[in-house]
Amino acid sequence: MASDKKIRLGITQGDTNGIGYELILKTLADSVILDICTPVIYGSSKVAAYYRKMLNLEPLQLNSIDDASDIRNGYNNIVEVIKSEVKVEPGVESKEAGEAALLALRAAVADLKAGKIDAIVTAPINKNAIQTDDFNFPGHTEYLENEFASESDSKSLMILFSDKLRVALATTHIPVKDVASHISKESIVEKLTILDRSLRLDFACDGPRIAVLALNPHAGENGLLGAEEQDVIIPAINEAYDKRIYCFGPYAADGFFGTEMYKKFDAVLAMYHDQGLAPFKTIAMDSGVNFTAGLSCVRTSPDHGTAYDIVGKDVASVSSFRDAIFEACNIYRNRANYRKSHSNPLRRQYFDKSNDKETIDITKVEVDTENTL
Amino acid sequence: MASDKKIRLGITQGDTNGIGYELILKTLADSVILDICTPVIYGSSKVAAYYRKMLNLEPLQLNSIDDASDIRNGYNNIVEVIKSEVKVEPGVESKEAGEAALLALRAAVADLKAGKIDAIVTAPINKNAIQTDDFNFPGHTEYLENEFASESDSKSLMILFSDKLRVALATTHIPVKDVASHISKESIVEKLTILDRSLRLDFACDGPRIAVLALNPHAGENGLLGAEEQDVIIPAINEAYDKRIYCFGPYAADGFFGTEMYKKFDAVLAMYHDQGLAPFKTIAMDSGVNFTAGLSCVRTSPDHGTAYDIVGKDVASVSSFRDAIFEACNIYRNRANYRKSHSNPLRRQYFDKSNDKETIDITKVEVDTENTL
Repeated sequence: MASDKKIRLGITQGDTNGIGYELILKTLADSVILDICTPVIYGSSKVAAYYRKMLNLEPLQLNSIDDASDIRNGYNNIVEVIKSEVKVEPGVESKEAGEAALLALRAAVADLKAGKIDAIVTAPINKNAIQTDDFNFPGHTEYLENEFASESDSKSLMILFSDKLRVALATTHIPVKDVASHISKESIVEKLTILDRSLRLDFACDGPRIAVLALNPHAGENGLLGAEEQDVIIPAINEAYDKRIYCFGPYAADGFFGTEMYKKFDAVLAMYHDQGLAPFKTIAMDSGVNFTAGLSCVRTSPDHGTAYDIVGKDVASVSSFRDAIFEACNIYRNRANYRKSHSNPLRRQYFDKSNDKETIDITKVEVDTENTL
Repeated sequence: MASDKKIRLGITQGDTNGIGYELILKTLADSVILDICTPVIYGSSKVAAYYRKMLNLEPLQLNSIDDASDIRNGYNNIVEVIKSEVKVEPGVESKEAGEAALLALRAAVADLKAGKIDAIVTAPINKNAIQTDDFNFPGHTEYLENEFASESDSKSLMILFSDKLRVALATTHIPVKDVASHISKESIVEKLTILDRSLRLDFACDGPRIAVLALNPHAGENGLLGAEEQDVIIPAINEAYDKRIYCFGPYAADGFFGTEMYKKFDAVLAMYHDQGLAPFKTIAMDSGVNFTAGLSCVRTSPDHGTAYDIVGKDVASVSSFRDAIFEACNIYRNRANYRKSHSNPLRRQYFDKSNDKETIDITKVEVDTENTL
């Protein structure tokens, strides 16, 4: 990214009957957004016009384009991904709204892969309405992991964050009865590796400290209330620690949040959805942002759903969505800075002290491992 | 209880190497406690003397007695339940400390059954140290349920509460992998029945409103992320509602706490330990009190464990323990008031309006159902 060019930020419309357009339009109505990025909505200017009228936001102008290569810097762009008419029924679950959401998501991902945009923010989808024969994912996170998996063999990681704390999830959208069987030493080490890497790369944390929550109540109480702490989580923490990932725990979730211990760490790895997100949302309220770590692309979203019950009523808080836009830009910049500052490092020299026995072969060409993501 | 006589409040010492004595002594050092109840510690005056010296609380006098029938009103009493010497090792897990905890608990429960004391507050035990061949329970709650089960066929219910919210648990101290299989329509209706009854009887709520949390993330997303909401929880809510229990849900736990929806309800029924207690402790911090509802006796405790890491360091917060004492007295009084105000009610008369088709047989003697607990 040349420094004089703004970040081209894709914004998918999400479910056309959901809260997406209301959030997008109200956020873009504040021209400060144009100071930090060039917004590129993936949607329909007709649907946008419908909501714009409903919300009395007529002054907001959108630059309608058919392809992202026509993006105009300094304007609110909208890529027309829906050619046919879409029936808009605010707050109603419909297949049509789900199909529209999928069209926008696919177009944005294609443009992201092609380098036409730099990062994306996704408005909420209805997970029922969007399911089709060839889209069978519980959510954005899993879909994006699948789309970008070919570029690296690492998995993605769901991180929710605000200015108060960061919470990552070892398992995401699965039933509670399946949580224990989805947790293994390997999967936790993998999640810790992605989290550690993301904290350095995306959040500019140097030497991040990570807290790992226990799976069972009272951290299993030495096996009395569950064996996974002894058999899986503690060995995973030890293995990751040996790889220089500064992780600690496992901590009983209730005491951990109750004593505000999260303030001592750069991030928390929770074992499952509600364990991490119920305390997170209690603390972060409406300022939480969801980030999909571990991917080669940058994607954020607000931490809520379609909010069918309040669509078009002009009562929704835009703060989570607006923060998602700011943070997508921050993470994109952090990555660029990280790569810049880690390119061409001085090579490690050999010192015979404190049992440091590593030596380097100075005849070998050094591979810039930090720059491959 | 005669109004001129103070509540005789049993306080079990808990694990003798845990935080129990420190909390008991520091709380009783404030003479305001004697204004609201007559404390009866179940423990050892030698162990108490050890901690009293350690914490510089020598002015605090304890009235040593061998049997609760010798309780002196207006004094801090201590029933000597340990005849032999006990080695005190602050912060160390030991069988000896566990045995001492069990002796105190058994003596207090026996006196509670015999009517020698009115209510109990239990200091924390170490669940590992206390296990013996004839004590095999994950905690106080399950032990007390077993001890008092013969007096009614209802089960107990764990309620954590502060001045901000009340959270009850559908399942308590079991591994996460077993949670789903422990939840049935019958068990949820049973817990809702106990909770509704306890809110009226113990917390003086008239017409309480109860929120029920979902088991799975996103409340199961219509079956996509788990079937228990459709198959178990919703039918349970409907059945309980038909019995005039004003329960609503199921709500996704993260959004429920994130939007402060708990403020609209008198209590929340969570499906498992961490789902309820992690947000609860985040909100209540160190003021939470644990209450075992559904029993014929009144029992409260602080919402934390033995805190081995800070025993004797004079840094522990007594607020949860002190609140447990206040609230045990409050609940005892609420019950007495409830019974008094519900004894000899006017009989229901027949009015032929709004489809109210109930009639009474005025020849029958009316049973005072409210007074049986």
